[in-house]
Amino acid sequence: MSASAQAVAARAGVSVSTVSRALRGVPGIAEATRKRVQSAAEELGYVASPSASRLATGRTRTVAVIVPLLAKWFFAEVIAAAGRVLSDAGYDVLLTELPTPAKRADFFAAPRLRGRSDGALVIALQLTSEELEALQGQGQRVALVGLERPGASSIRVEDRDGGRAATRHLVNLGHQRIAFLSIEEAPGSTLGGVPPAQRLLGYRDTLREAGIPRDSALELRVDNTTDAGADAVAGLLSLAEPPTALVAASDELAFGALATLRRSGLRVPDDFSVVGYDNHELAATVDLTTIDHGVAEQGRLAAEALVTSLAGASPAIGRIAPRLVVRGTTAPPRHLRADSR
Amino acid sequence: MSASAQAVAARAGVSVSTVSRALRGVPGIAEATRKRVQSAAEELGYVASPSASRLATGRTRTVAVIVPLLAKWFFAEVIAAAGRVLSDAGYDVLLTELPTPAKRADFFAAPRLRGRSDGALVIALQLTSEELEALQGQGQRVALVGLERPGASSIRVEDRDGGRAATRHLVNLGHQRIAFLSIEEAPGSTLGGVPPAQRLLGYRDTLREAGIPRDSALELRVDNTTDAGADAVAGLLSLAEPPTALVAASDELAFGALATLRRSGLRVPDDFSVVGYDNHELAATVDLTTIDHGVAEQGRLAAEALVTSLAGASPAIGRIAPRLVVRGTTAPPRHLRADSR
Repeated sequence: MSASAQAVAARAGVSVSTVSRALRGVPGIAEATRKRVQSAAEELGYVASPSASRLATGRTRTVAVIVPLLAKWFFAEVIAAAGRVLSDAGYDVLLTELPTPAKRADFFAAPRLRGRSDGALVIALQLTSEELEALQGQGQRVALVGLERPGASSIRVEDRDGGRAATRHLVNLGHQRIAFLSIEEAPGSTLGGVPPAQRLLGYRDTLREAGIPRDSALELRVDNTTDAGADAVAGLLSLAEPPTALVAASDELAFGALATLRRSGLRVPDDFSVVGYDNHELAATVDLTTIDHGVAEQGRLAAEALVTSLAGASPAIGRIAPRLVVRGTTAPPRHLRADSR
Repeated sequence: MSASAQAVAARAGVSVSTVSRALRGVPGIAEATRKRVQSAAEELGYVASPSASRLATGRTRTVAVIVPLLAKWFFAEVIAAAGRVLSDAGYDVLLTELPTPAKRADFFAAPRLRGRSDGALVIALQLTSEELEALQGQGQRVALVGLERPGASSIRVEDRDGGRAATRHLVNLGHQRIAFLSIEEAPGSTLGGVPPAQRLLGYRDTLREAGIPRDSALELRVDNTTDAGADAVAGLLSLAEPPTALVAASDELAFGALATLRRSGLRVPDDFSVVGYDNHELAATVDLTTIDHGVAEQGRLAAEALVTSLAGASPAIGRIAPRLVVRGTTAPPRHLRADSR
């Protein structure tokens, strides 16, 4: 054990509080006093405890980053971008994954962040008002990615516009039979699924504007995995009148769709067009036309808003406009080849 | 501000230390005393401060997870798996990214973890002895992924065996001109690159065993990105005597290789075979033959070793044996088609 602050205080002839303030470099301590405290601390081998220092200042220089899931590209990307901003601003990151309703309930039932972090960055979890109040009640500034709530900073993507842009691109190429792979969260998921639902609404908007009737057989809701994307497209290809194109609500779904199309002998984009949604790091590799919704940007902007509000600014609202990235998986339609199944 | 522990102690007629222990459920407090403290705390609206509680016990119930990079599939996967184990064991995760030598030097120069975490899980960063001692000097139990050091738990993959298995598969299929895409970390990277170097040694072992002469033109060292993989294969295809197969030291390199092969009109595996290394979540989607080195398993086992050592056990050493996953990108060789470029 190292020496106590009391021992340092006794040796330097000052109060414990003065020891703490002198060693943390807080202004208002005479230079001679500071030197005496430092000498005493060095002689006694005393190292200030961060916990003690935090108790004294009430600041933790830590931000809690709260996500529903860690092992997904989107979250790793957002956390990495946010983490860079927080680290550069001198904040440590306390990472919390809330993958199940039980973990979520436990987390919000107790004041888990009080005295541990100054702010919370909540990614994609659709916080209830009570949950937001629980965070704020623990003295946390809050920034949100993927939703908006009064009293919190937030970064939101105009996902409905993204769904429109993806669908409009296919309509403009001449497609009429356009499927949409939407994301249905598994029961017990804490993801919420609001952005994917907005993408679906954008798809419907565009069909309506283009005078193309909605066909419920072309709107599928599946798990957000490549396997589910692959299976969904197999179903679409077995329809009496299959689509000639599809919009997927995520690039992972689109990757699965491309795998099924390849296996079935259909050529992309000659026989079938695919638009994804994410601009995943591997989208360029498979030449996927997709919607870029600034994933790293979401993390960066949310972290910047949080750092600013921790410095005393009011909560800030940021919006990201998704944009179409045209690559090699989209082209004007052609009838499905007779030899395909 | 909530009431102080002193006020609760005064009301309950006990010491502050008893208040702390009673509210934390530490054994050895009479039940009547515990109830009196709880009543007093409730009446006064007192909530124990985690920092204060941590000062009292000297335990933070927090583990620092230290990575060189966050925005890479490997790290997200390891962190997610480790995080589940730590969360289930009641530990919070303090996440630290050390992407540059400057951040790394800063981090180890100060006792950043003292009083903040009980243990450190270090992933892929090749710690020096001094860095390991710096962590241990801050009272941290240490578990390592991807290296071994005396006094620390560690999980290591037999990467040389993985490189051997990948190459042997191609030799067994009849390939003689086999390239290897190795990973060269950019200057200033903190990744270290030891596992990829081991994979390269395994490749050389197998060529030697098979009596195939090494050709330095077939050993390329590139950044670990799909673009670099794509460029490297373009170079290989422009050799006077191009290879008929390659082993990539990561699946991302292999994905890039597949993209170049597709663009060049070469069919995989008819004209060219590719083996990756990772079993990335998208490897199955693109039907990539690869080496599975249990990435999630690395995180899970390391976290379990750390939790066990935090409970008082000696450091544990774990090894993971990589295994070949045969999919659709490998087949016996055929001469490169005359019509390809």
